[in-house]
Amino acid sequence: MGSLVVGIDLGGTKMNAALVDENGKALGTERQKTLPEEGPASVILRMAELTKSLLAKAGAEAGDLRAVCIGVPGGVDDARGVVDKAPNLGWQGVPLGAELGARLGNPRVFLDNDVRVGVLGEHAFGVGRGTKTMVGIFVGTGIGGGIVANGELHMGLRGAAGEIGHMILDPNGPRCKCGNRGCAEALASRTSIERDVRDLIDRGKRSSVLKMMKKENRPRLTSSVVERALADGDPVMTKVFRKAQEAIGTLVANVVNMFDPEVVVIGGGMAERLGESMVAPIRVMAQSKYLQKRDTDKVRIVPTELKDMAAPMGAAFIARSRLQKNP
Amino acid sequence: MGSLVVGIDLGGTKMNAALVDENGKALGTERQKTLPEEGPASVILRMAELTKSLLAKAGAEAGDLRAVCIGVPGGVDDARGVVDKAPNLGWQGVPLGAELGARLGNPRVFLDNDVRVGVLGEHAFGVGRGTKTMVGIFVGTGIGGGIVANGELHMGLRGAAGEIGHMILDPNGPRCKCGNRGCAEALASRTSIERDVRDLIDRGKRSSVLKMMKKENRPRLTSSVVERALADGDPVMTKVFRKAQEAIGTLVANVVNMFDPEVVVIGGGMAERLGESMVAPIRVMAQSKYLQKRDTDKVRIVPTELKDMAAPMGAAFIARSRLQKNP
Repeated sequence: MGSLVVGIDLGGTKMNAALVDENGKALGTERQKTLPEEGPASVILRMAELTKSLLAKAGAEAGDLRAVCIGVPGGVDDARGVVDKAPNLGWQGVPLGAELGARLGNPRVFLDNDVRVGVLGEHAFGVGRGTKTMVGIFVGTGIGGGIVANGELHMGLRGAAGEIGHMILDPNGPRCKCGNRGCAEALASRTSIERDVRDLIDRGKRSSVLKMMKKENRPRLTSSVVERALADGDPVMTKVFRKAQEAIGTLVANVVNMFDPEVVVIGGGMAERLGESMVAPIRVMAQSKYLQKRDTDKVRIVPTELKDMAAPMGAAFIARSRLQKNP
Repeated sequence: MGSLVVGIDLGGTKMNAALVDENGKALGTERQKTLPEEGPASVILRMAELTKSLLAKAGAEAGDLRAVCIGVPGGVDDARGVVDKAPNLGWQGVPLGAELGARLGNPRVFLDNDVRVGVLGEHAFGVGRGTKTMVGIFVGTGIGGGIVANGELHMGLRGAAGEIGHMILDPNGPRCKCGNRGCAEALASRTSIERDVRDLIDRGKRSSVLKMMKKENRPRLTSSVVERALADGDPVMTKVFRKAQEAIGTLVANVVNMFDPEVVVIGGGMAERLGESMVAPIRVMAQSKYLQKRDTDKVRIVPTELKDMAAPMGAAFIARSRLQKNP
């Protein structure tokens, strides 16, 4: 029986994978385009190829692979190995477990949510190593999150814990896609930043963001455009981004006032690119709102360390711990 | 050696005490005025008399008392038995442990924070019995809170967890005494309700709240006046109270979206009096803001069951568990 596991983060645009040995050491990592428009069968084929390529590069064989765990951007039924619904992929009721397993000599295949595996990755291998309490905030097209309590991912009574992006920060704020007003996600996600940038440009403010977006030929604002516009000192992006940082600062303060964790990690594409330059102002704003001012610096507010490898590493960690529980 | 413990909730106006046996059964409860204006020595004497009276009524003697635990409205140094600072009592550096102990034949004396002991009381003996995850929100002159995770009070890295009343719900809201704007406490505490009631009356709205307050001859709005004004259909109180319920509803939704606990208990004077009639609208407002709509009713949002005995019972529970850890 094999001893290796592969963790895959299945995103809407790309998939990131890591091959991990029994000591938690990454033997290799690799990226691939997802191309969801080609349909599930093609995506699953590409996942299988990605896995085989990782094994081959590490000098391993199909028989060495004990399990694969996939972080999916949506809802999964792990017991049946089915992706219930993943809007970013256009998937509904896809039997990912069985189909990927069949292409890889039938290792065990586990499914979980992409944000959860990212939080677990940072906890097991990144900034949260060794902590009992951690909060992860992943700022992307939405804002996802996860909570580690007592050294383990806190699922909550209904499995609904960690929806930090839907904490309401302003009852008069913009409408969120969840239906409420002023959720963190509606104030500070990349989608909200794009909305506010377009709004200011529509109102006549000068900005080169739209030109940058056109050059990239992508329909939506990307983290790389955010990064470049900030580096250029684009006045609209600078202003809008600052507002988003303020909202995230309030969110972090709320989380700290409630939970007082050892570490709050800010992840997602923008945090991966901007790192400390994104997080430093968030930290200052958050700290100014702590009720308990004592030992303010003890609660670490930090950018993701593993970046886009947090989720595949977390998926590999889940594969390992599920194998342990149920060999 | 004795087997009984006494838990005391030391409030600014009254003290509530419970005598509890080794099975967690309350053998008796009793109330006394605090009269902090008479000074610490007098208050401590009254606490000793209250304890002796409880013992006598239960047919027990001083030697049967193994420990006393006191919930203090402020900061305590339990190791030294000293109340560091309790503004409501006007106390600073009071050696409560030694002085109360000396008057009671030197049982062990433990100190803790009043909100914490209240949360623990509801968890050990009230609505939270048997749960692993609970959140307590105590609405009084301020808004205090506490979190139970994994069956135990979650203290947080700096011992600062549970400050739910200082989660920011509106960046443009009224200034809180903590310095921030729009904390739950600044929107929905009894103090905030009084501020908003006075403000509407100043602006010419008709209300009999001030007359009721005068009749009571107490400088501040009390829970009993809130109750009577609502029962009378006073338009100002009805409007202001509804706004406070909305804010608490948002607070509960934020807590549930983040932590997804088994139960959220609403306590404090107003919840003790109004019970379900205060909590029902809060529940509806909170549930409308959950991200995860599945099994909405599973997360119980309920008024305090133990009312003003939550804190003394929780204090007794703490005495018992500290004795176990360190006999």
